[in-house]
Amino acid sequence: MTTAFTPLPDSAIDAVLAKVRFTADGLVPAIAQQHDSGEVLMMAWMNADTIRETLRSGRACYWSRSRQAFWRKGDTSGQVQNLVALRVDCDGDTLLLLVDQLGVACHTGRRSCFYIEAQATGPETIAPVLMDPNALYGTTPSGSSF
Amino acid sequence: MTTAFTPLPDSAIDAVLAKVRFTADGLVPAIAQQHDSGEVLMMAWMNADTIRETLRSGRACYWSRSRQAFWRKGDTSGQVQNLVALRVDCDGDTLLLLVDQLGVACHTGRRSCFYIEAQATGPETIAPVLMDPNALYGTTPSGSSF
Repeated sequence: MTTAFTPLPDSAIDAVLAKVRFTADGLVPAIAQQHDSGEVLMMAWMNADTIRETLRSGRACYWSRSRQAFWRKGDTSGQVQNLVALRVDCDGDTLLLLVDQLGVACHTGRRSCFYIEAQATGPETIAPVLMDPNALYGTTPSGSSF
Repeated sequence: MTTAFTPLPDSAIDAVLAKVRFTADGLVPAIAQQHDSGEVLMMAWMNADTIRETLRSGRACYWSRSRQAFWRKGDTSGQVQNLVALRVDCDGDTLLLLVDQLGVACHTGRRSCFYIEAQATGPETIAPVLMDPNALYGTTPSGSSF
């Protein structure tokens, strides 16, 4: 069971943003990890606005580089990520989001995007499809579920 | 206890590399996670050569963007990462390395680089320094321990 995230005040969000070193495009990579199992679910990108909205709302929001658009995870697919904690690394150039992922994180219908493992036989699929991607979107997008 | 990683044959490595979508600079971000505890330790960058060497040797090797150099983690600091598994995500643009991290992953002497948490009071340090950074390097570099 997840404790609901308490939205942060703007003063705290500003101080957190001051720790982040964004790329020239104003982005920073963000790793999403299931808070209790430790499973790494996906990696996506955030900008200052999506970090701010995530810390205000308690729902993970990203910046879609392919669609050049704000993306509140789950708005289309229903596969919401509720925030548990947001951490910044030592250099300020990567974020770690501890989340409670409803359903699946991956657009393929798998729980995690990291389902291809390097094995002696080559790249092997190691995780099952749990949800029909067409049921998530009606179309076939790429990347994490949105 | 970690099972030693069995080096992959070149044919398997080639097939894995064919799944990876590198940036224009020939790089791909790689998340390192402690294989048993699930702790996310750091994020660094790899190129085709460091992926190949990692899968041949069973020791995590990265590309240092700041030093523009091949970097076998632990060669300087002693804080070796033994590989347990390497996974590629659905889009091929991020890697996940399951590792057995000896000592600390972070150049600050902390186990993980993600030790700054967004709290209501602002960014707070949530993890202790376990090793003296000067003992790791004799100097004060930035980033993950190398």
